[in-house]
Amino acid sequence: MMMNEERLRLSLAAHQLDAVVATSPENVTYLSGFWCLPQWIRRGPQAFAVFAPATATQPVQVIAPTSTLDLVGDQMVQGEIYRYGAFHVEADPRPLANQPEVLDDANQRHSVLRNRADHVTAVTALTAALNDHRLNKARIGLDETGLSLDDVTRLKSAFPDAVFEPANDLLRQVRAVKTEAEISHLARIAATTERSISAALDAAQIGMSEQEMARIFHGQTVNEDAMPVLGCIGFGERTALMNVQPSSRRLQQRDLIRFDVGGHYGQYRADIARIASVGEPSREVRTKFDALYKGVMRGIDMVRPGIQAGDLFDAIIDTVRQEGILHYQRNHVGHGIGLDGYDFPLIAPGSATVLEAGMVLCLETPYYEIGRFGLQVEDMLVVREDGAEVLSAMGSQLRVL
Amino acid sequence: MMMNEERLRLSLAAHQLDAVVATSPENVTYLSGFWCLPQWIRRGPQAFAVFAPATATQPVQVIAPTSTLDLVGDQMVQGEIYRYGAFHVEADPRPLANQPEVLDDANQRHSVLRNRADHVTAVTALTAALNDHRLNKARIGLDETGLSLDDVTRLKSAFPDAVFEPANDLLRQVRAVKTEAEISHLARIAATTERSISAALDAAQIGMSEQEMARIFHGQTVNEDAMPVLGCIGFGERTALMNVQPSSRRLQQRDLIRFDVGGHYGQYRADIARIASVGEPSREVRTKFDALYKGVMRGIDMVRPGIQAGDLFDAIIDTVRQEGILHYQRNHVGHGIGLDGYDFPLIAPGSATVLEAGMVLCLETPYYEIGRFGLQVEDMLVVREDGAEVLSAMGSQLRVL
Repeated sequence: MMMNEERLRLSLAAHQLDAVVATSPENVTYLSGFWCLPQWIRRGPQAFAVFAPATATQPVQVIAPTSTLDLVGDQMVQGEIYRYGAFHVEADPRPLANQPEVLDDANQRHSVLRNRADHVTAVTALTAALNDHRLNKARIGLDETGLSLDDVTRLKSAFPDAVFEPANDLLRQVRAVKTEAEISHLARIAATTERSISAALDAAQIGMSEQEMARIFHGQTVNEDAMPVLGCIGFGERTALMNVQPSSRRLQQRDLIRFDVGGHYGQYRADIARIASVGEPSREVRTKFDALYKGVMRGIDMVRPGIQAGDLFDAIIDTVRQEGILHYQRNHVGHGIGLDGYDFPLIAPGSATVLEAGMVLCLETPYYEIGRFGLQVEDMLVVREDGAEVLSAMGSQLRVL
Repeated sequence: MMMNEERLRLSLAAHQLDAVVATSPENVTYLSGFWCLPQWIRRGPQAFAVFAPATATQPVQVIAPTSTLDLVGDQMVQGEIYRYGAFHVEADPRPLANQPEVLDDANQRHSVLRNRADHVTAVTALTAALNDHRLNKARIGLDETGLSLDDVTRLKSAFPDAVFEPANDLLRQVRAVKTEAEISHLARIAATTERSISAALDAAQIGMSEQEMARIFHGQTVNEDAMPVLGCIGFGERTALMNVQPSSRRLQQRDLIRFDVGGHYGQYRADIARIASVGEPSREVRTKFDALYKGVMRGIDMVRPGIQAGDLFDAIIDTVRQEGILHYQRNHVGHGIGLDGYDFPLIAPGSATVLEAGMVLCLETPYYEIGRFGLQVEDMLVVREDGAEVLSAMGSQLRVL
């Protein structure tokens, strides 16, 4: 279980909610530990999780398609399982005497889970879960992001005496402070992403295409049992394209290379930026890069619990301006990271959000000049009681090839 | 442009719609060719596409975050662009005389696109697009899947004289018949997926873990410029887990290996299943596999325009039963594939959906016995005028290692 249960309980109490219903892939995985494959890789398939601290013996209820009960079993999902929908799986057809006495754990749990009643649809299963736990007159926080308009209407009309409050932001606020189990996943994917950048840059040679470099980058990621997600890798003038996707553009002398990249490990994401230069960069590029780098370093120095996000923003922007990019402007200079690539908080101007120990942040100072170049420093860190613990530990200095 | 514009126009006419609004990643990419990175890799970010055949000089309007205009430029998205939101990018700060006369195409288009007015939010940009094209009293098909409840309310109240009809199914119906450009992408990712399976099986050895085999599988996929999506790879008793995720389970003598896998290339998906056996499989496994294989082969033989999906289902199920699995049951034996892993049509019992030339199908006969083994044959094919063109051409016979 990854979730910060204490923080979730406090948040529900503060909002006078008896329960919260998660419907997005991130929130379902967060509350229940259940990674529902079709929900993550497609749009449409539904799985839900309910957290009701006071009314149930098991605080978490999981609503899962019958076709994914093998994953529920294999992932050892805790909590009460409600299944919906038909999916054919055979029991062992051999005579009982010829069957093994003990199944492996995943198959065993799967076979037990299949005995639960079929609730036919996701919303009827959710309705049953809420009824079973006597939440029919409760105040319920509802993450509506994984529900259709019809689903919401059906749910609300099934519980005319309940009060539903939007809860997507509440869950994001809870998810903002990571548990050590989450930080361990984030540290692992940050390290994998840095090693993948290094592997790609170690292989760099004149004439290699952006696509060829991307293969090496993603190849290292999958070799470390992580999955590719974000792979913005550009050369030369294409570094100015903020979301640059690898093309047939070939590496030339004096090119810059920009990475803004990160895979996921166990659904936990990395987001790291690095710059390299084929040969010494120009004085202008060096000056501007150093300013951006010092901006992030200033942020890392300043991070600790109690700091306001808006103050962190101002300090980073001011540093970049003082160090060489007078006109530097950004809408944000960082964001949380976790199950989503953009978790709370956003490090944005005027934000009164206070940093807390356990937040994991990406601090970043991207800078783009159309048609010329893009530069970017982005590091991942944990907010600790005594300051920042940087997860991207290989250093974000410009690398000269 | 990938879309089947003729089919879309006919569908709008048949539903007496003046326009259709796409909001899901698949539908936006389909209508406009625009692949909006944040919309695809996260939940929440919004991009839209409007197709209005009669009222506009440009039939397609695209609503894009300002932060993704570089992708609009680099992807040479056709149509009228409406941008929303702030994102800082600098123009060339050098004196005009020192600037290059010609920018590369992507940077050039990006710089032009930034001059468009900022509509601040996705829904206000969409509202402007609909107003500009005099759709304020039109009948509009609306794909609601990428809109929040509030978005839908705002949109409908901005156009009190328009009629909005749900259009997600309409767009899925249009997407069911692929263009040759789409088929070319699907053929490529099918071939990549088959080669990735072969690479993994070529490297199989006793003692290798499922995770180690998955690395080789995904490694080949990224080496061919595709991206991993689905990687169900299991050994032995874990082949019975239908969504089996690679674990530390090590390959043993007499194990079965089951792949149900597929990456994407240019967002077009593959979904292919293969079975291997370490040494000769048991007579029971061989008999059951052959029945499943013959079921899919029967389907491939039967596929042509005009066939009903329900009849195809019956023929495949009957074949599997006659050939050795008397009790064989399934909720479907296949589905379309394209930008989504499950496109229309579903090959399901009683379905009156008629196959059309250009549909791309996965035909599959999975079979699971809890605690014992899972077997599966799944091939990709194009419905052609004269029958099936199989895209997974390396053959789906059980491979003995």
